[in-house]
Amino acid sequence: MDLLTPRALASPHRLALIWGQHTLTYRRLAEHTAALAQRLRREGITKGTRVAALLSKSPEAVALIHALAQLDAVIVPLNLRLTPGEMAAQIERSRATHVVATEAAAAQARMVAQARPLLEITPAIWQHTLPLAPTAPQPAQFVAQTPLAILFTSGTTGQSKAAVLTAANFYWSAVGSAYRLGVFPEDRWLLTLPLYHVGGLSILFRSALYGTTVVLPDAAATTSFDPTRLYETLVAHKVTLVSLVPTMLHRLLAAVDAPPPPHLRTVLLGGAATPNDLLHTAQARGYPVALTYGLTEATSQVATATPAEVRRKPGSVGHPLLLTEVQVVDEHGHPMPPGAIGEIVVRGPTVFAGYDQDPKATQAALRSGWLHTGDLGYLDADGALWMVNRRNDLIVTGGENVYPAEVETVLRQHPAVADVCVVGLDDAEWGQRVAAAVVLHPNQRTTPAALETHCREHLAGYKIPRLIRIVPDLPRTASGKVKRGAVRNLLMRGEG
Amino acid sequence: MDLLTPRALASPHRLALIWGQHTLTYRRLAEHTAALAQRLRREGITKGTRVAALLSKSPEAVALIHALAQLDAVIVPLNLRLTPGEMAAQIERSRATHVVATEAAAAQARMVAQARPLLEITPAIWQHTLPLAPTAPQPAQFVAQTPLAILFTSGTTGQSKAAVLTAANFYWSAVGSAYRLGVFPEDRWLLTLPLYHVGGLSILFRSALYGTTVVLPDAAATTSFDPTRLYETLVAHKVTLVSLVPTMLHRLLAAVDAPPPPHLRTVLLGGAATPNDLLHTAQARGYPVALTYGLTEATSQVATATPAEVRRKPGSVGHPLLLTEVQVVDEHGHPMPPGAIGEIVVRGPTVFAGYDQDPKATQAALRSGWLHTGDLGYLDADGALWMVNRRNDLIVTGGENVYPAEVETVLRQHPAVADVCVVGLDDAEWGQRVAAAVVLHPNQRTTPAALETHCREHLAGYKIPRLIRIVPDLPRTASGKVKRGAVRNLLMRGEG
Repeated sequence: MDLLTPRALASPHRLALIWGQHTLTYRRLAEHTAALAQRLRREGITKGTRVAALLSKSPEAVALIHALAQLDAVIVPLNLRLTPGEMAAQIERSRATHVVATEAAAAQARMVAQARPLLEITPAIWQHTLPLAPTAPQPAQFVAQTPLAILFTSGTTGQSKAAVLTAANFYWSAVGSAYRLGVFPEDRWLLTLPLYHVGGLSILFRSALYGTTVVLPDAAATTSFDPTRLYETLVAHKVTLVSLVPTMLHRLLAAVDAPPPPHLRTVLLGGAATPNDLLHTAQARGYPVALTYGLTEATSQVATATPAEVRRKPGSVGHPLLLTEVQVVDEHGHPMPPGAIGEIVVRGPTVFAGYDQDPKATQAALRSGWLHTGDLGYLDADGALWMVNRRNDLIVTGGENVYPAEVETVLRQHPAVADVCVVGLDDAEWGQRVAAAVVLHPNQRTTPAALETHCREHLAGYKIPRLIRIVPDLPRTASGKVKRGAVRNLLMRGEG
Repeated sequence: MDLLTPRALASPHRLALIWGQHTLTYRRLAEHTAALAQRLRREGITKGTRVAALLSKSPEAVALIHALAQLDAVIVPLNLRLTPGEMAAQIERSRATHVVATEAAAAQARMVAQARPLLEITPAIWQHTLPLAPTAPQPAQFVAQTPLAILFTSGTTGQSKAAVLTAANFYWSAVGSAYRLGVFPEDRWLLTLPLYHVGGLSILFRSALYGTTVVLPDAAATTSFDPTRLYETLVAHKVTLVSLVPTMLHRLLAAVDAPPPPHLRTVLLGGAATPNDLLHTAQARGYPVALTYGLTEATSQVATATPAEVRRKPGSVGHPLLLTEVQVVDEHGHPMPPGAIGEIVVRGPTVFAGYDQDPKATQAALRSGWLHTGDLGYLDADGALWMVNRRNDLIVTGGENVYPAEVETVLRQHPAVADVCVVGLDDAEWGQRVAAAVVLHPNQRTTPAALETHCREHLAGYKIPRLIRIVPDLPRTASGKVKRGAVRNLLMRGEG
């Protein structure tokens, strides 16, 4: 899929990118991208080649993503916060034959590329240019089911899953978002989310389609979230749209006691359930909050309430986007009446192609064309969607998804551990924080600190339990199932 | 093509229509449309049925157009200003098997329907509702080459031609316009242009795709153009976008000495060459003018300069829309260098399917995928398009196209007329006005008044020459071709 060439032909002088004191027009970005695509082709990257990508938020990362998309290669962006072991496993799983990395991530890439060719996108490489092809690609590409990206989602089984998203998925996601949030010719979208998240990646394709501008945060801000710096960036670069997870918005409101940035027209809030008091505070402070429900398997947004809709009906995530259909179903898959809580299922052109090499998980997720999200909610009489809970066990901490099963698996590998239950505890700043109750084998001894060290060897930092408590046994139902609610209460009581 | 159902599912409460004191949400419009589609189906209208439509600007006309599009019928909207003879000829030419008409046009429809079933869309009919289908149509419809409309364009040969426009044409036209002019969730587009013009018809489909609002002018204003009423409508209904031809803007500026309507963000000016002084006056008065070049055969806009682009480069119609390609070619079809004047040719998903039942004209217009417009212009070094002239002979008067050959054919039918040349003379108010130089047969006598009466029997009012002069002979080139420029000078001199 090539959105960049037609955009550069249609709007050569519009700004594609802003970072620091620098800007790049669509024509220039397309010229860099054309040169980079030529280089990638020389490396043997072509249609269908799977390319693991370690990407800092940088202009070369943006050019690289567009170049890979132009070649119809499959982008496999990796979470830079993963351990080398986790990363190597994902490269293996994705069957990537090539690795590419921006300079800031090159050291990590060298640790995990193994025998695969590794291309580091240095300034010397990406600053080449080639003249623009004068011919726009045909629109058929936008409905093509060509795989464009493989994104790893935390699987409920503890094994992360590799979601395959197509060119058509990204195109229709951009279309649905356009005609919900609107497109202003002067729009500037700040890339707060990482490029390995569907929410970050889709901003690039969407902006190229619209001819609007992507603003990259300062390099220093990409490693740790700094709310004051976020505010300054929003003001300085006249940002109009920003995607935030609730934790970010919470920290922004806590750190900056000033009116909203003057050009900001929408804060797209998603990635986790939004606490009501956060929503009220943001609205009272004049922030134009849009609430969205989305997931990787639906190429981000499924339903979105605009700021005006949020004011009229606070808490609802609104109606499905154009061409997206939502139902709420019971355990047999039958649609439920308005107001009844059930599983949210989704159908439409943004629904992913399936999990890579995993027909069983794909069949479980995609039934008769409906994506079974595992998330709970209800539709009101008017057809607007309300979230009740994200996937039962899912912990969302600072916008990152943590599946308890994955953390539990790691803890169980410790020789002293007999049993374990990982839950999320409410947290004003992070939304939730990870906590674990651990049962030891008889005659075995260890400490929470030692268990944390064990976790740190195998898990990205955000997955490591902030609280680990050793308990004599886990509360269970009559049928032997761990009562997660009771574990949560137990851990919360212990804290107080 | 069904844009309305997905839009009504995605945005049930957004306003689809405003007229007078009335409004209609997308859900309600879709419910009316569903009932109307059912009724049309009962009349035997189905996929591919050609339906001649006589449409006043009314809510029922909007529902009717969406209903016919839902059925994949082919809409043949007729110019209500044509004589019954002209109208009957177009119905015949289009092979329409059914005629539909809104109440205001029902009398005309009865005169021309002949043996065809005629459905008059009375309030009693269109105010039925049916519940909305809960399933959104698939996106494949938007790239389908299903004929959606047949629009008559004045042919250069005097015989008007029947341009076939597809669902994909209208979809991609809406896409290109969206990402040039922007889409604001609160946008309201005033339907100034008639529904039998591609510029009017496309507003309906575009607005449904975007989820924005169409404002219908007052019924009284639809029969004659009243600039003061236009201004009042723009203000009262908070209109943000309006399509005008230069004559309309000229009259608006002359009649209303007040600041631009406060919500108006873009005046899309097209349909004829825009005089520089009109552009300057409009800009000086603070009107946000976008300049566009378009034609029926490319589903309206080909290239459009936004108000910001017009300020930077006054007079250019800007870059082609997304996915539209423009070249300027010489008489052999070879692309010309920047700055060189040649014929404008257009390629892309908005280029029409051809002229109905006219392979010869289609082949002349569509060569190797390029639409040969007959219009002259040049591309500057930056790729922006500048118009030099509309099709050599074309007269654009008050936004209506008049082809000299058609008027000449009618005048030649008069027994006293031996030869004739019809040209356009510059006119401050109408852009151009039609004028004719006539040579009589020896020993035959008639008067300009008698010739005008003859024209009135056969031609719509706007095609009738405002000036007819009887001359001894026509200035010709050595090869015998009439020198139109010399005729124009001759007629202008006579006026002074």
